Amino acid sequence: MESLLNEILMQCASYKQQGAVASYIPELAKADPEQFGICVVEADGTIHTAGQWQSVFTMQSIIKPVILLAALMDSGEERVRQLVGMEATGKPFDAFNYSDQALAAGHINPMINTGAIALCTLIQGATYEEKFRRLLDLTRELAGNDRLQVEESVFQSEKATGSKNRALAYLLKAYGMISDRVEDIIDCYFKACSIGANCADLARIARGLACHDHSSLQPAHARYVNATLMTCGMYDGSGEFALNVGIPAKSGVGGGIMGVVPGRMGIGVYSPALDKKGNSVAGIKAMELLSQRLNLSIF
Amino acid sequence: MESLLNEILMQCASYKQQGAVASYIPELAKADPEQFGICVVEADGTIHTAGQWQSVFTMQSIIKPVILLAALMDSGEERVRQLVGMEATGKPFDAFNYSDQALAAGHINPMINTGAIALCTLIQGATYEEKFRRLLDLTRELAGNDRLQVEESVFQSEKATGSKNRALAYLLKAYGMISDRVEDIIDCYFKACSIGANCADLARIARGLACHDHSSLQPAHARYVNATLMTCGMYDGSGEFALNVGIPAKSGVGGGIMGVVPGRMGIGVYSPALDKKGNSVAGIKAMELLSQRLNLSIF
Amino acid sequence: MESLLNEILMQCASYKQQGAVASYIPELAKADPEQFGICVVEADGTIHTAGQWQSVFTMQSIIKPVILLAALMDSGEERVRQLVGMEATGKPFDAFNYSDQALAAGHINPMINTGAIALCTLIQGATYEEKFRRLLDLTRELAGNDRLQVEESVFQSEKATGSKNRALAYLLKAYGMISDRVEDIIDCYFKACSIGANCADLARIARGLACHDHSSLQPAHARYVNATLMTCGMYDGSGEFALNVGIPAKSGVGGGIMGVVPGRMGIGVYSPALDKKGNSVAGIKAMELLSQRLNLSIF
Amino acid sequence: MESLLNEILMQCASYKQQGAVASYIPELAKADPEQFGICVVEADGTIHTAGQWQSVFTMQSIIKPVILLAALMDSGEERVRQLVGMEATGKPFDAFNYSDQALAAGHINPMINTGAIALCTLIQGATYEEKFRRLLDLTRELAGNDRLQVEESVFQSEKATGSKNRALAYLLKAYGMISDRVEDIIDCYFKACSIGANCADLARIARGLACHDHSSLQPAHARYVNATLMTCGMYDGSGEFALNVGIPAKSGVGGGIMGVVPGRMGIGVYSPALDKKGNSVAGIKAMELLSQRLNLSIF
Repeated sequence: MESLLNEILMQCASYKQQGAVASYIPELAKADPEQFGICVVEADGTIHTAGQWQSVFTMQSIIKPVILLAALMDSGEERVRQLVGMEATGKPFDAFNYSDQALAAGHINPMINTGAIALCTLIQGATYEEKFRRLLDLTRELAGNDRLQVEESVFQSEKATGSKNRALAYLLKAYGMISDRVEDIIDCYFKACSIGANCADLARIARGLACHDHSSLQPAHARYVNATLMTCGMYDGSGEFALNVGIPAKSGVGGGIMGVVPGRMGIGVYSPALDKKGNSVAGIKAMELLSQRLNLSIF
Repeated sequence: MESLLNEILMQCASYKQQGAVASYIPELAKADPEQFGICVVEADGTIHTAGQWQSVFTMQSIIKPVILLAALMDSGEERVRQLVGMEATGKPFDAFNYSDQALAAGHINPMINTGAIALCTLIQGATYEEKFRRLLDLTRELAGNDRLQVEESVFQSEKATGSKNRALAYLLKAYGMISDRVEDIIDCYFKACSIGANCADLARIARGLACHDHSSLQPAHARYVNATLMTCGMYDGSGEFALNVGIPAKSGVGGGIMGVVPGRMGIGVYSPALDKKGNSVAGIKAMELLSQRLNLSIF
Repeated sequence: MESLLNEILMQCASYKQQGAVASYIPELAKADPEQFGICVVEADGTIHTAGQWQSVFTMQSIIKPVILLAALMDSGEERVRQLVGMEATGKPFDAFNYSDQALAAGHINPMINTGAIALCTLIQGATYEEKFRRLLDLTRELAGNDRLQVEESVFQSEKATGSKNRALAYLLKAYGMISDRVEDIIDCYFKACSIGANCADLARIARGLACHDHSSLQPAHARYVNATLMTCGMYDGSGEFALNVGIPAKSGVGGGIMGVVPGRMGIGVYSPALDKKGNSVAGIKAMELLSQRLNLSIF
Repeated sequence: MESLLNEILMQCASYKQQGAVASYIPELAKADPEQFGICVVEADGTIHTAGQWQSVFTMQSIIKPVILLAALMDSGEERVRQLVGMEATGKPFDAFNYSDQALAAGHINPMINTGAIALCTLIQGATYEEKFRRLLDLTRELAGNDRLQVEESVFQSEKATGSKNRALAYLLKAYGMISDRVEDIIDCYFKACSIGANCADLARIARGLACHDHSSLQPAHARYVNATLMTCGMYDGSGEFALNVGIPAKSGVGGGIMGVVPGRMGIGVYSPALDKKGNSVAGIKAMELLSQRLNLSIF
């Protein structure tokens, strides 16, 4: 397996030049586009790695499935479904041009910013510091890594420039979908996006979702998350990814992709140069090759 | 003229029951739906009144033409045009579902909330307290009424509940259309909307716009404002109003309507029960009758 | 006046190069971008001309106000209002991306293609040949020109390529807004758009609308048309035109613009190079200059 | 298995009353809402049935995956991808309110009407009669049923009332995405939607897609279809279905649902009362129960 992973990184190396490192937050723009790593964790826990799999990047949107999971665990499926929908929106992850009807009908899903921000309110905790702490603990537990923590400089950078996310949060408030202080919620969300992780962390979280056997994970919740990832996990490239790779996955603008192969394995990839939809170019290519070579498609 | 105005109020009285007092801000909901007043100020300054023309209500969106005027006077037509467009949007005044293209191309106009909030940044003043002071002074000057002031309870009510306007302001910031602190700008805007006025105040401001001869008003700026009112002044009922009344006008959810009859007169009407588009029901009817009786349509 | 008109054509001559002749119909692409003419008809019928005012071009969208007029005359204001709205749409003239709600609520206006196609059904006539004949007769009468006729090659070109208009008509049918055969209605509409006219024809039609005194024109209908032109006549450049010129007007992709100065005059301009919104570039500039020089703005 | 299927039909029987039989085509409105049948075909071909599994209904949108398959087989994956996209649109299946950008970028997918109509042009055949014949032959082959044929009365009903589909086809033509005669293409599409089938036919087609081993089916094409079904197969209820059932599936307004369980089985269900999104209410419930009982979710 290690030699397969190395081979894949080599074959996909040229794609590192085809995207551009995220620049909307100054801190993200500092990422080194040459970094490229991958990690696979099999159902039995066996780990395989290649390239810069130990490089740390911020999870960004990859934290969304963990937020969804925390909301499901702490507030139950019913309340989650009341707040957010399940349908693909046909729009970018940070879109705001929803009609009144769409917002009123909860037509936002947990994998777009609006939905993820709303779900932060369903995580257990008396304050948003506590809610964030709960989220961080869950992430550490799933990743089996107690040292996961917020990358402070990225968090401050997000906080200083996140006008669009603030706009989305105020819209949620205007429509009565959230009621707490926007700045508190948004701080929790920005901190969550700024948690640093490496390919192995992603692969372990994914393995838990894939195998439904992690002690802090109910199978029904894992399936909820996986189904959501399948239809909306790769931004507005989710359909293309379903076709070309065929597994539930989540990408983040930090350059990571987390792939869930139900019953078989978890995958983590990292390469910071992104395509226009916000997905890692080389990361997607590596996923495609891996899927073909190991016949991972669930279709 | 007084008897005509009284006759009109009587004929339109039944319409007071057909709308509903604005309820999105608790303070506005306290308005008495029985109030109904009108004031006409002729080109030479002669004033005619009927009904509760002295009742004070908050200007709300009727301050938008004054904001536009202040921006034109203080920053010039070119900068105003760079920031906001002139086209009707085909959407409600507080719509947020604009596409990226629309925002990037300045496709917002001064009579919708987004445009008016943006224009606050072009009013003269080192701070937003100073900018607001400048705006209040201009309003007082145009209305010839030094006692105009902010209705504090309405301002606090707006401030406490204005999530949608905050959302719009953060969108403007996300798109680089404003750069100052959102809370400062929005405070200035909420205060401006909360200025209390009566029918005579509106009629005098309108007379200045109609006759282009107010000392603090350039004819080109007055025409700019009037043209904008014609196409976008009555929310998404502007086309209907152009057909039925035929004059530039601006309504506010406080229940007021200000009508500008170029070269002839200014009109102020007040009746707080609104239709679904946010326009005073009885106020529009009174404008229609007055237009028919005095042949005011500019078409 | 003649010397003023000549001066204006000279001053605006350079704008002829700044646009592009319409190319969406092969026949229109044959127009000579050097053509530039203007005609003013005063309230008393005095006519003033300059440049290629006798050049014939197809009316295209300029026939829309005549279609509206015919529908008003033949079916009455009530039925017209039931079928089409009055509000600006904030979209291009051939837009199709209306929501279900917008279509169901008659949220289309007579100056966009969808609205004009719908209004053809309200013109008197047992067949669409008769309806078109009625429209042509009215156009001839208003223009005082019995020789106005369809430019057959343009009509055939429109008919051969008009997929978008067919799409719009089938949408109207799908929503129950029209019930006759789409091909019949669309033929009538394409023929109407293909009527050839010159600047003097446009100016005379406009004079009738401006003065409300044409024998076949009720003042209320003229005002209806003029108000509609003011808010929606220049496509999605209507707001800009209201500001810069300040009169009701209608443009067509054939390169003509018809301007209505209430109580004073009718104007016809022709220059076939268009801006991106479909308005004649030099034509708009000529209108601007004329408005400034003669103080035509109604604001 | 038979007893399980019977049990499921019994448990879901009450849902038959909760929807409404499709009424947009007069012929469909004649369906008997009491009909309820199910069929499962296992990987090895073993067939299990319950209820009115032999009742014939028209396939309607369930023919879309077969159209996609025919286009893939006859014109290749590259041409299919050039013409239609893969992303969920976030809109109803017969939506027309796409922006110019969306259409130009091929932002329509094979499971919405616009995409399916476009794909008809990629099926082999010199005429649209031949193309339809090819499609019918492929459907018969996959269903293993030579007697499948067009329900003539439904076809005539669709043809007589299909204004919205004509509108969509003319839009495709206006944007250069199709070039043949609209009436020919639309006839082919209406005929395809009017093919009659029963639960066993659907289950056999689905088994072929599930097992990739049908002689006239390449595995890559089957995966293409299955991935598309997963993200867009159940109209704008696809996300919900992914969560609650967890398998690729396609519904039709005739009341059928076809479910593909990769590697395991094909499922056909029929119950004509639909929910607001156009999916069979009792059919979805039966799929949910079956998925739970047999643990079918691929997540």
